[in-house]
Amino acid sequence: MREVFQQELREVQERLIEISKLVEVAIQKATKAFNDSDVSMAESVIADDAKIDALAAGLDELAIGILALQQPVARDLRVVVTALRVSASLERMGDIAEHIAQLARYRYPDKVVKKVLRATFAEMGELDVTVAAKLTELLATENLEILEQMRDIDDRIDELHVSVFDAVLGAAWQGEAVDTVDVTLASRYHERFADHAISIAKKVQYLVNGDWPAPGEG
Amino acid sequence: MREVFQQELREVQERLIEISKLVEVAIQKATKAFNDSDVSMAESVIADDAKIDALAAGLDELAIGILALQQPVARDLRVVVTALRVSASLERMGDIAEHIAQLARYRYPDKVVKKVLRATFAEMGELDVTVAAKLTELLATENLEILEQMRDIDDRIDELHVSVFDAVLGAAWQGEAVDTVDVTLASRYHERFADHAISIAKKVQYLVNGDWPAPGEG
Repeated sequence: MREVFQQELREVQERLIEISKLVEVAIQKATKAFNDSDVSMAESVIADDAKIDALAAGLDELAIGILALQQPVARDLRVVVTALRVSASLERMGDIAEHIAQLARYRYPDKVVKKVLRATFAEMGELDVTVAAKLTELLATENLEILEQMRDIDDRIDELHVSVFDAVLGAAWQGEAVDTVDVTLASRYHERFADHAISIAKKVQYLVNGDWPAPGEG
Repeated sequence: MREVFQQELREVQERLIEISKLVEVAIQKATKAFNDSDVSMAESVIADDAKIDALAAGLDELAIGILALQQPVARDLRVVVTALRVSASLERMGDIAEHIAQLARYRYPDKVVKKVLRATFAEMGELDVTVAAKLTELLATENLEILEQMRDIDDRIDELHVSVFDAVLGAAWQGEAVDTVDVTLASRYHERFADHAISIAKKVQYLVNGDWPAPGEG
């Protein structure tokens, strides 16, 4: 049974990385669809989101099954608990990528964002893609230096998010209400995407460093 | 040790209910602050959010400790897993209440929402408060009929959320960009708050009905 158990544990980690990679692809396509007004790419993000949802639900099932049947301890327990704690956030990152793609689709063939803000959104999009790639790398390597890099990226995204509001609320803003709504939502989505990545990364930090009670002490 | 264990399990459930009650108070105060432009109430929501965050983190610690030391099975395991799966969403509901309060504080002494949309936001706020109260009740009773009531409330909130955009994008909208931004964010917060409540409620459903592997089958 130990072999089955070790195989299941490896599967938990592999599935986490797999979902994270799908999220990375989703945000890459979503931001491209958003910035280039590419409706077929937007539709592919929207169609693919169900896969992320199903994988996240399946991961929860697997993790709960391991807890019920194998009663893991120490590092093994941490792996399983981490999966349970982060699966919903990964799913949510996929949802946000989908929301960004939906904005692109609604506005097609127009672009969602007026010219004055396109460079800002292009940068936010690139940073979201980078933060997603770093998250996959962190899950695969557990190298906590990556968390620090992610925090720096998140800080920059927060700055850009604030700058979007500065632009929209400034005297030079020429957008109509629909532009203002779209830009507000889009900026919020880009910012939240990175927040979720950071929140997952912090739980990986806990996985690596966690001060866990030893079995038998209860 | 069994007694300690049963006491810890009870504590997990009590703390879940406790956090849910604090979230209920937070959204009650936040929507009041938002609708009445009550800055001191807004500040109290903002100040109290750290307590929800700390309780959610503490609940995770408790749940992980039980998993490590007690290796619970069956229903006991489901309770602990549910706590781990919902604590982040409860914390997030508290954050959203804080965001609503922050909007009220930024705009004080003005109201955040122009007259034409005040009735809509008053209703959304009441529904968010009701959904939070129902969530507490569901956690306390595990009566799944409450989940159905919550879904109905969530549907109505979604309708109101759509109606806000209809108003903002309609010809009659007189708001400036700042009004449009605030209303967009506020509507999104009200809608997301209920979404989180539903997502937690679904996990309680799983707790009650979950088809879990029996121990020893691995």
